[in-house]
Amino acid sequence: MAGYNLEAIEAAPLKDDVDIVIPTIRSLDFLEQWRPFLHHYHLIIVQDGDPSIKIKVPEGYDYELYNRNDINKILGRRANCISYKDGGCRCFGFMVSKKKYIYTIDDDCFVAKDPSGKEINVIAQHIKNLETPSTPHYFNTLYDPFREGTDFVRGYPFSLREGVQTAISHGLWLNIPDYDAPTQLVKPRERNTRYVDAVMTIPKGVLYPMCGMNLAFNRELVGPAMYFGLMGEGQPISRYDDMWAGWAAKVVCDHLGFGVKTGLPYLWHSKASNPFVNLRKEHKGLHWQEDMVPFFQNLRLSKESDTAAKCYMELSKMTKEKLTKVDPYFEKLADAMVTWIEAWEELNPPVKKTQSDGEDVKAKG
Amino acid sequence: MAGYNLEAIEAAPLKDDVDIVIPTIRSLDFLEQWRPFLHHYHLIIVQDGDPSIKIKVPEGYDYELYNRNDINKILGRRANCISYKDGGCRCFGFMVSKKKYIYTIDDDCFVAKDPSGKEINVIAQHIKNLETPSTPHYFNTLYDPFREGTDFVRGYPFSLREGVQTAISHGLWLNIPDYDAPTQLVKPRERNTRYVDAVMTIPKGVLYPMCGMNLAFNRELVGPAMYFGLMGEGQPISRYDDMWAGWAAKVVCDHLGFGVKTGLPYLWHSKASNPFVNLRKEHKGLHWQEDMVPFFQNLRLSKESDTAAKCYMELSKMTKEKLTKVDPYFEKLADAMVTWIEAWEELNPPVKKTQSDGEDVKAKG
Repeated sequence: MAGYNLEAIEAAPLKDDVDIVIPTIRSLDFLEQWRPFLHHYHLIIVQDGDPSIKIKVPEGYDYELYNRNDINKILGRRANCISYKDGGCRCFGFMVSKKKYIYTIDDDCFVAKDPSGKEINVIAQHIKNLETPSTPHYFNTLYDPFREGTDFVRGYPFSLREGVQTAISHGLWLNIPDYDAPTQLVKPRERNTRYVDAVMTIPKGVLYPMCGMNLAFNRELVGPAMYFGLMGEGQPISRYDDMWAGWAAKVVCDHLGFGVKTGLPYLWHSKASNPFVNLRKEHKGLHWQEDMVPFFQNLRLSKESDTAAKCYMELSKMTKEKLTKVDPYFEKLADAMVTWIEAWEELNPPVKKTQSDGEDVKAKG
Repeated sequence: MAGYNLEAIEAAPLKDDVDIVIPTIRSLDFLEQWRPFLHHYHLIIVQDGDPSIKIKVPEGYDYELYNRNDINKILGRRANCISYKDGGCRCFGFMVSKKKYIYTIDDDCFVAKDPSGKEINVIAQHIKNLETPSTPHYFNTLYDPFREGTDFVRGYPFSLREGVQTAISHGLWLNIPDYDAPTQLVKPRERNTRYVDAVMTIPKGVLYPMCGMNLAFNRELVGPAMYFGLMGEGQPISRYDDMWAGWAAKVVCDHLGFGVKTGLPYLWHSKASNPFVNLRKEHKGLHWQEDMVPFFQNLRLSKESDTAAKCYMELSKMTKEKLTKVDPYFEKLADAMVTWIEAWEELNPPVKKTQSDGEDVKAKG
């Protein structure tokens, strides 16, 4: 552990700096179980589907709730960039938050236990991940060097040990793994029972499938790149909202010099979704990802794009140029990306030097 | 687990396809504890230091032993490419082996236990790692998709799920972590007690610090790139033998399309070496690694280099060109790299299509 006071971070879970964003179509009874860990945080609930349904939130939680009518009212003509009948609508919550960090969680996820039987405090772990640096330029074989009881190993250049500021913390899931429909169909009984006690940086230049089920990020650094795309009703594709956001945010992080971590914390994913429904929703995505992934792997952002919003505008242009030939849908998506940034900037007027936090990645401990 | 019969691999530990290479200066009592796992494999013992010392090998082991006199006799004038009084002498064993796989282990390493208390069969795990593909082009968040009980997650392109042939399996260490002298001095009591139950591919384009303590590789694919450099007596540097081999072998694997894994299996590293002695041995390396790592990160091998040996000859040229300005030592190292390849090819005359194995990475299960 290289100079960080992790206990202090755990004791002060930054409750005034974190919003928890939950997309849902039902009452949030699942929050009862989360009370010990989440009740002192503010919730932003994004109600998907029929706005006339009343969402029940367990007592004692502090929250704001937005349904489709609210989204339409707040964003006006720009509301069309927010997906409908798709978990991707959660990104509206990212936009209306004013906090430094977002934690977003699905409503079919519960508290998991570590191998010692202790309940896992997801948010404390995500905050640890985000508040300690990432090491995207070289792989540390003993995993996260900023964890207590470990460090950089022999052969790790000292000039790289300061690391870079972490922008994204991707948590994992016990029980139901996040498989696509074909894999679900082939392995209906496969469960993830393996607790891998590690957090690691995904190296610079490497893409990964980011799942939105258990995800935290620094919205000051990468919020504008966390757009969950145009999915669900009226669109040819679903279940790629988080993937799109993950690929885009990763290339933006790589370009701006921020880090992305994956691993701990685990939560308990309770329910496998219907693989046949999923297959219908994702079949175009299964095909298109063969083009989307190389697109993100090969693109190079320009030096002028020095904020997440500018990067994202450039990405939108590239999406239109390179992916429209895959399907006309991508032209619509590219336009929605621009709309998203316009809406983001309307709700979050750019202040001078918004990236100043990002410049200081020195040890704080 | 994507189509591989791992039980079959475990049941048939390929004993005729593996040599175990051990560099040592003392009697090999440590092999007593390894008997259940290693005794049916052939050993190649490389005796370092004074050749007149008699190395005792526990009864029942099948072995060949080479001391410095043997190395001089076999390699003649080329023997100077093999380090003396440095663990890097082990690469002589790689050269005289005729097997497909090498497992190399240090003589201060013992059998570790997994969290259930079961003794870990290092070689079975390394063979699993080597016999199943790697996935260097995209990160799988649930780690090794070829392990039983897991698979590729949602958002993993199907075109990348075949993976590539694995060339290197880098195992880890419980108890004494592999720290450099400054970290040893700062944290004399730090022990690695964390068992991370994962194997992962180190992505293409990413370097890592390869430790030679618990290492397996496919010598048909990358043997010629596994040169442990010129270290120890008569050289300005030590304790960078495995690092040099790791960086070189990784760029060769990336270039030739082979994979590198790290993680399981763990062994028990018993004894911290003296940090003051280590500091003397490695202080130049601590400095030079600031140039060596960017050198390996930025180099591009040519298309003509289509075997490990050809890649290594090209690397030697680049080493001379780019690193000699860091220190004249690198000119000597570059010459030794050429000598190493000459010696390798003398002992392992190139046969036509030696890479044929490498072309078939299809699922075997």
